[in-house]
Amino acid sequence: MDNNLRIAIAGLGTVGVGVVKAFQEHAAGITQKSGRSIEIVSVSARDQSTDRGVDLSGYSWAEDAVSMASDDNVDVVVELIGGSEGIAYDLVHSALSNRKHVVTANKALMAHHGHELAVLAEANNVSLQYEAAVAGGIPIIKMMREGLAANNIEVVEGILNGTCNYILTTMRETGRDFDDVLKEAQDKGYAEANPAFDIEGTDAAHKLALLTAIAFGVKPDIESMPVTGVTNIGAEDIKFASQLGYKIKLLGAARRVNGHIDQSVEPCLVSEKSPLNGVEDVFNAVMVQGDFVGQSMATGRGAGEGPTASSVVADIIDIARGISVSTFGVPAQDLREAQWAAPEEVKGQFYLRVVVVDKKGVLAHVSDVLDQHGVSIGSVIQRGKDPDNEISIVLETHETSRKAMDDVVNALNDGGVAVKMPTLLRVEPH
Amino acid sequence: MDNNLRIAIAGLGTVGVGVVKAFQEHAAGITQKSGRSIEIVSVSARDQSTDRGVDLSGYSWAEDAVSMASDDNVDVVVELIGGSEGIAYDLVHSALSNRKHVVTANKALMAHHGHELAVLAEANNVSLQYEAAVAGGIPIIKMMREGLAANNIEVVEGILNGTCNYILTTMRETGRDFDDVLKEAQDKGYAEANPAFDIEGTDAAHKLALLTAIAFGVKPDIESMPVTGVTNIGAEDIKFASQLGYKIKLLGAARRVNGHIDQSVEPCLVSEKSPLNGVEDVFNAVMVQGDFVGQSMATGRGAGEGPTASSVVADIIDIARGISVSTFGVPAQDLREAQWAAPEEVKGQFYLRVVVVDKKGVLAHVSDVLDQHGVSIGSVIQRGKDPDNEISIVLETHETSRKAMDDVVNALNDGGVAVKMPTLLRVEPH
Repeated sequence: MDNNLRIAIAGLGTVGVGVVKAFQEHAAGITQKSGRSIEIVSVSARDQSTDRGVDLSGYSWAEDAVSMASDDNVDVVVELIGGSEGIAYDLVHSALSNRKHVVTANKALMAHHGHELAVLAEANNVSLQYEAAVAGGIPIIKMMREGLAANNIEVVEGILNGTCNYILTTMRETGRDFDDVLKEAQDKGYAEANPAFDIEGTDAAHKLALLTAIAFGVKPDIESMPVTGVTNIGAEDIKFASQLGYKIKLLGAARRVNGHIDQSVEPCLVSEKSPLNGVEDVFNAVMVQGDFVGQSMATGRGAGEGPTASSVVADIIDIARGISVSTFGVPAQDLREAQWAAPEEVKGQFYLRVVVVDKKGVLAHVSDVLDQHGVSIGSVIQRGKDPDNEISIVLETHETSRKAMDDVVNALNDGGVAVKMPTLLRVEPH
Repeated sequence: MDNNLRIAIAGLGTVGVGVVKAFQEHAAGITQKSGRSIEIVSVSARDQSTDRGVDLSGYSWAEDAVSMASDDNVDVVVELIGGSEGIAYDLVHSALSNRKHVVTANKALMAHHGHELAVLAEANNVSLQYEAAVAGGIPIIKMMREGLAANNIEVVEGILNGTCNYILTTMRETGRDFDDVLKEAQDKGYAEANPAFDIEGTDAAHKLALLTAIAFGVKPDIESMPVTGVTNIGAEDIKFASQLGYKIKLLGAARRVNGHIDQSVEPCLVSEKSPLNGVEDVFNAVMVQGDFVGQSMATGRGAGEGPTASSVVADIIDIARGISVSTFGVPAQDLREAQWAAPEEVKGQFYLRVVVVDKKGVLAHVSDVLDQHGVSIGSVIQRGKDPDNEISIVLETHETSRKAMDDVVNALNDGGVAVKMPTLLRVEPH
């Protein structure tokens, strides 16, 4: 083996093409920074005949991506296929088993199989890197695993899905409703034709599972994560939140609670004091709170050819430089099973919107239900009277527990006072 | 040598004590992350008898800090003394010559001697790391050198001095004048008794010189940097800037211009569209614009025991992990002498405030001077009439060159129309 680092790229969609472009355009600079040249030796994708706008003639074409995992000419396999199972999994598993470094942008794969694959990588003394899997262009994994390594992390939270942030920002700025703005986002290419993965919170959940693992030294656990998307956020909620001094953002957040971890993806009310408040449109941001550093935040584009390729290539340069850090910051064998906080332990303020039929005493009825569950009310907004028609009662609680609020919501729903399932949103304390 | 990494700490002020605390409080976690234990073997400071609130009894005390550089029991020297010359320089130079890694928080030392010391470190095959020297708790050096290594950096700019940001934020929020707010900042401990180093821009200049070196692969050059502090910013300027839709921030900024580099520290007008606009009080932020990543920004506390110690310890953990990256991202021998952009090449919009005696035709006179230098005016604010007394004429130009604006300022000053030197501020385009 000469001193070149030889890479194979599986998957030539937007990100794969971006990676090829970065190596073609910045070859000299990358060699200078890495101390050795990095050479693309082979590529693979579904269809060789597609014109991808880059010259691939210098690379060998692998019909079977998984075959690259056993190619003696390859030092690093770059997996950009996607999906938590199938070819992506087979390729990564096989590459690590064959002592090849792996760089991936695959958040689903890492969220579902990250621990197993990290153990495999470490057993084979190779790197498994995935900077591009979380918040595209923001080097948050490096920042947490290395730059903030001196800290006990207390909180990690972020705006992890650009599609949702774009939709919520546009709803707030225009007063338009969810479906309308979603359609516009699809027209602009900010949302997929099938947007479920983004708007139901799954994408953010994959990313949060990885951040939680690094922050707290636990195995990524997507299965037990409460995930709520943005599909039930109405223009009304955004307007009421503004009246209370908040923006609604889809947050992925994990924090220490009594030695347990509270982890969730859900729309939250974010105050002007939060550094996340100003992060708008398709931008992502991750805020980390550590015991020494305090609050530290990084912001940037979360997706797209350039930002994602930037992170994939940075991981490859790290490997070329000989930088090797455990996949989740500590040896994979040391990762613990997370102990998740129970709803009783999770304290905070909440926003509640209850749609009721405007009848005498209905506000008193709602207040009684809260009172019965020990929840005290901070602010109330009752929309102007509209006898015998549906109106929203909106309120912000004082500090209470998530358990109490879940009980309140069920009681309002089961008791018949709420016309439909009430909207419950957490008020972000940071 | 066993597998422990043995460190010596020179300087036990706020940051040094913070570093000791981090190792004492997080020993197990740091060992787990590093894969080996990190042991403080010796410390040094001016006065051994001072009570610093931490137990130093387990470490040997060096009367002469420089002697630690030749101690066979030391692998890493941590320099927290400060100052670009004297003991700090001698210690670092000697440590590197003796093949010991160096971690420093000393921006003045690195800005003045960074290239020479980086060459020395690389010749001796040891690391010279200084994450804490720029923007305390923000791991911006790691982010630029590693996380964004795939990019050609086009712009790096930041709010690099918390004291100035606090003063400017408070002036804007309260309408109070500079001297008054500076005094409050001193009372609160946000500004030194002798604040010159902060408010005249020197501290930000040291930091910018290092960011510029990393961003563009050039030798840090503090000597040729134009530096303007915040001492001439009046409450009036802040009010007028607000009327035009801007905040005034002290920015350190470097950008590519025609293959040259435009580098300066100066108060700038920052629009609401800029990610730097929302960074207030003592917070620092650095925005990097790369050709692949787009705009990426990091925000956090720029100073103080915890944040600065966080970065010092992260550098030490890097060394323990075997992470070694060239001091400025490329081999020190490859760093070029920067070619600085001439004032004719530097294009942009500018804010100009001219104090004049309110006489008939004075606005026309000022306009003529701008016109003679080819500068066209975007917006004008002339404060209400006050015949025969001093008033401010404030204007924002269309795009022009810095050279033209410097000539305008001199012409207004020399021509007697301006009562005192006009205030010229750059409008930040990002």
